[in-house]
Amino acid sequence: MRYDIAIVGSGPAGLSAAINAKIRNKNIVVFGNESLSNKLVKAPSVDNYLGFYDISGEELKNKFKEHIESLGIEVNNNKVNNIYAMGEYFALMSGNETYEATTVILATGVEYARPIKGEEEFLGKGVGYCATCDAPLYRDKKVAVIGYNKESEEEANFLSEIASKTYFIPMYKEGLMRSSNTLDETIEVIHDRPVQINGDKLVNKISFKEKEINVDGVFVIKDSASPKSLVPGIETEGAHIIVDINMKTNIPGCFAAGDCVGKPYSYIKSAGQGQIAALNAVSYLDKLKIQNKL
Amino acid sequence: MRYDIAIVGSGPAGLSAAINAKIRNKNIVVFGNESLSNKLVKAPSVDNYLGFYDISGEELKNKFKEHIESLGIEVNNNKVNNIYAMGEYFALMSGNETYEATTVILATGVEYARPIKGEEEFLGKGVGYCATCDAPLYRDKKVAVIGYNKESEEEANFLSEIASKTYFIPMYKEGLMRSSNTLDETIEVIHDRPVQINGDKLVNKISFKEKEINVDGVFVIKDSASPKSLVPGIETEGAHIIVDINMKTNIPGCFAAGDCVGKPYSYIKSAGQGQIAALNAVSYLDKLKIQNKL
Repeated sequence: MRYDIAIVGSGPAGLSAAINAKIRNKNIVVFGNESLSNKLVKAPSVDNYLGFYDISGEELKNKFKEHIESLGIEVNNNKVNNIYAMGEYFALMSGNETYEATTVILATGVEYARPIKGEEEFLGKGVGYCATCDAPLYRDKKVAVIGYNKESEEEANFLSEIASKTYFIPMYKEGLMRSSNTLDETIEVIHDRPVQINGDKLVNKISFKEKEINVDGVFVIKDSASPKSLVPGIETEGAHIIVDINMKTNIPGCFAAGDCVGKPYSYIKSAGQGQIAALNAVSYLDKLKIQNKL
Repeated sequence: MRYDIAIVGSGPAGLSAAINAKIRNKNIVVFGNESLSNKLVKAPSVDNYLGFYDISGEELKNKFKEHIESLGIEVNNNKVNNIYAMGEYFALMSGNETYEATTVILATGVEYARPIKGEEEFLGKGVGYCATCDAPLYRDKKVAVIGYNKESEEEANFLSEIASKTYFIPMYKEGLMRSSNTLDETIEVIHDRPVQINGDKLVNKISFKEKEINVDGVFVIKDSASPKSLVPGIETEGAHIIVDINMKTNIPGCFAAGDCVGKPYSYIKSAGQGQIAALNAVSYLDKLKIQNKL
């Protein structure tokens, strides 16, 4: 089956896009996570979202949740790793699953973590963002997982079953702090900041402040991939996707909204842009329908 | 006194700009009307404003009202007729009053009524939008008021005290329907659609479908003036003010948001843009402050 609109992200931009697309009777899929928006949930108080004041991020998230549930919108918790523009549709790759959609709305937020030196240079040459996708390449080889979230521990466990040696480099608070974790015993945890991913044609080592390790592959596991690694060919400026005032990206049928298109990083700006993106996606679909009839 | 930010309009764009500017400790003035937004109040149901569902326009307006009141924001009911960019500041003309502000955010909505043929051509040459401002020019002359709202009746009454003859041409439902109104007895009401405002160098008549009347001046009284007549020099495309993604117009220090900058005409899109406009106005003010210190 092919969706009319695939929305990637369940923060205010993604959810606002979802309710507007749903009201317009479009067949949609929303990719996100259970907490909808980690950033929002952690906000102690939100006072600049017109209509709500002195509300906690958690409470506002619950209002959003009620709203999407009232329209029967569900959030798919599968992570989208790559989106390919196939001409007539987009293919969204999530682990071993492929989803098809005629249009895509990117509402992926902004990744505050800067890429590690060498990360972008060696992307596809030993650096990857999806262990499930690329693990078979590293059978009996040495891999490192640089993990920015708790889920990265699972990726490391999965890799450790295939690779001859798995390193885990936690970059998130919980991972750094606690002595116990859910990692397999065979995994070597390195409590040091990676400075650079090195290699020749392919990755061969990671340098830390005071040491180096030899590896054949590096998986960087973040909440969201950079727009360019998520959607090959998309135009960006710094960390942000370039859009026009209608939230159109350079790829026909691909729209973007919220933090991923630039500052200010704030909720109602994102919700407003999500609406614009959805209505323009609807109008794009309507035009396609007319063209196909001619 | 000079305000940091003058916000023209009290719909979702204006109010969202106001709360964001206020939270940033800026000294603001908001021009609007008591009902905040006539369009919103008349909406039977709003379901696409993320966080609220199955809410009436009136209820949503009340939420907005509570929000601005919680921040001590008041709406000034004076109508702004002209805004002039004076270089260091903006002068906002309202009847006989002048307000000064370092930056302006236009959130004036969109006027659905198309200009009458000749209206824009003769603007300032017999066509005006403010009776209070221009009435003295028409002492003992013939004037017509083309009225798009109930308030236009007051303008006609005011003119009838000065002009030798006053015509009133109601263009709004209530004005067209009812036989009684609050007009002075000396005013002649014409129940016909004006087709064109004619003249040579100055206005001299109005043509209707089947007749003409000779006049020296025509006042067109709408809820909002066209952007170009409100802010001389502002760049527009059709009925809309041209803005970039930061809601900047072509005039430095002048921002715009909401329906007046284009479709979709919807609430949360407007609120989102109002926030962007406010934050960019704040950043403009901060830069000015630094420049002035150097």
